[in-house]
Amino acid sequence: MGRELIVSGVDKEMKLALEKYEEPKDIKRVLSGMRPTGRLHLGNYFGALKPWLELQEKAESFFFIADWHAITTSYHDTKELSENTLYMMADWIACGLDPEKSTLFVQSWVKEHAELHLLLSMITPVRWLERNPTYKEMMENLKDRELATYGFLGYPVLQTADIVLYDADVVPVGVDQLPHLELSREIVRRFNRFFGELLVEPRPYLSRAPKLPGLDGRKMSKSYGNCIYLSDSKEEVERKVRSMITDPARVRKTDPGHPEVCTVFTYHQIFSEKERVKEIEKACRRGEIGCVQCKRELAERINSFLEPIREKRQELLKNKSQLIDVFKDGSERARKIAKVKMEAIKEAVNFLRS
Amino acid sequence: MGRELIVSGVDKEMKLALEKYEEPKDIKRVLSGMRPTGRLHLGNYFGALKPWLELQEKAESFFFIADWHAITTSYHDTKELSENTLYMMADWIACGLDPEKSTLFVQSWVKEHAELHLLLSMITPVRWLERNPTYKEMMENLKDRELATYGFLGYPVLQTADIVLYDADVVPVGVDQLPHLELSREIVRRFNRFFGELLVEPRPYLSRAPKLPGLDGRKMSKSYGNCIYLSDSKEEVERKVRSMITDPARVRKTDPGHPEVCTVFTYHQIFSEKERVKEIEKACRRGEIGCVQCKRELAERINSFLEPIREKRQELLKNKSQLIDVFKDGSERARKIAKVKMEAIKEAVNFLRS
Repeated sequence: MGRELIVSGVDKEMKLALEKYEEPKDIKRVLSGMRPTGRLHLGNYFGALKPWLELQEKAESFFFIADWHAITTSYHDTKELSENTLYMMADWIACGLDPEKSTLFVQSWVKEHAELHLLLSMITPVRWLERNPTYKEMMENLKDRELATYGFLGYPVLQTADIVLYDADVVPVGVDQLPHLELSREIVRRFNRFFGELLVEPRPYLSRAPKLPGLDGRKMSKSYGNCIYLSDSKEEVERKVRSMITDPARVRKTDPGHPEVCTVFTYHQIFSEKERVKEIEKACRRGEIGCVQCKRELAERINSFLEPIREKRQELLKNKSQLIDVFKDGSERARKIAKVKMEAIKEAVNFLRS
Repeated sequence: MGRELIVSGVDKEMKLALEKYEEPKDIKRVLSGMRPTGRLHLGNYFGALKPWLELQEKAESFFFIADWHAITTSYHDTKELSENTLYMMADWIACGLDPEKSTLFVQSWVKEHAELHLLLSMITPVRWLERNPTYKEMMENLKDRELATYGFLGYPVLQTADIVLYDADVVPVGVDQLPHLELSREIVRRFNRFFGELLVEPRPYLSRAPKLPGLDGRKMSKSYGNCIYLSDSKEEVERKVRSMITDPARVRKTDPGHPEVCTVFTYHQIFSEKERVKEIEKACRRGEIGCVQCKRELAERINSFLEPIREKRQELLKNKSQLIDVFKDGSERARKIAKVKMEAIKEAVNFLRS
């Protein structure tokens, strides 16, 4: 299941959400984060980074590496945390996030996130968190991981702190995260009821970009082992594309193909020019182009898309301290704003100020 | 119930705990906190402050005003938070806590408490917190207060952060807090198992001092309205002592009294000299001293105990910014230690460091 839905570009749940959804106008400040749990893959690029690249052109943007969030689920194994954080920095900038245009920072480098998390924890009913669908689902699916930690239960509280610390009024999210954003809005309203209208209620920004499936047609995910990573070599990309699942009804090249169920074709729609996509579709249906050739062509397209990213990435990683400095600067900029906000919040709650 | 037990100085539960309890030797560093939820009363003095005064003479001591903890239960009404914090500062110093001997600080002024709370939240199973007896009890007793907040559930996590941030090996606690300290020890062991032996397991320091009952013989507590406050005037003390409950079997002065069930007598045991206590006991049993006289004498004793505290307190509150500066200095000293510890913890967890 799910496969056809994903191949069709937009899945059912997303369609429903998009129908009700109005794109926010007059965006003042955008904020979003990403958990450094591994290398970025093409699914991350098209699902998250690409919308960010668009947003940084039209609004004041804050993007952060959510290293605190990374340990909500993998607290027992943090061996790769610092490396993943560093590689995420490289991936982001290699893909075009621009520290001149956006504020790029690391969550744990701005202590106010932890502070506001603590404060908001005091006003958030446990029940609101227990009814969070992601929490319930994770509890059911991952029984072995001892995931039922206090921090995991509370990560929507931390997410709320992340957002409101910067008065971000718009947050780019996936459909699956809409309930978390709704929870954030509830927490904000509760805070404002107790302490005055100080926090901004964030609105969602849903990307209309199609989801990129994994090599096997399912959602691209590290845990499924079906990813093409931004850091994959030319040869790895070729090998992976060769392993892609195509139309199972097509045995010989001359059999007529069904591009609408073919993962390779979905990729062509994203990586190839419109005219060429039409030609491929026609040729496939007529049995005039074989899967091997079609895949070879796709691998070339993906590689020419990835090549400049790969190069930039390698260059950035040659000078790690310079890369880290970019995020240090961003974190300092972020912190200035976060600090002022946190002071105002503490004032409103009536803490004695030093 | 409970009354006789308290009058006898040490209650049953405490007796049991004390039997198993060995006073910690080689104390390295002591840490304890108090929630600024109102003025201090004599029960606070004898139950907490007095043991602290002893400890500051024999160990490196850290005492903090737990303003974060104060809002776990009264998040909906923080009008008096900053005033209560300030008055707590005055009470502490007036009673003899000495900023030259102890590090006196405000919890929220050291951001690392919030940071470590967030980190420890990630490794603490929700179930450990749910089985906390104080949580269960509060949930049952205070249903109207919407107490079931995420922060209230997690306050033993914050307590653990408070303690381990300073490598405190000994924590003065009441018997009712022993389960929290045990929980802290469990969290510490879990952290150390994941990330190496970095956190110190704290041991309890149980005071053997008798509990001071309230005016009505029950536990002295703001919510019972049976307190004598350190800030009460001479006249208020006299009035309150006059209202104290004595031996109910004694109607006339000449009736033989039973000092062992008399709250006034319990107070004499604390406030009067040994010889005088013996005389009073004898005279009471023989019906030779009346309750009115006995109370008048007690009020005098309490007032001469409170007078220097009252004076010092008033003097301190005349110059509030100077008083705040004392805690600012202490908080800076505390923060230096907390910062180094938090860096080491982040290093161990493998966060990318800026």
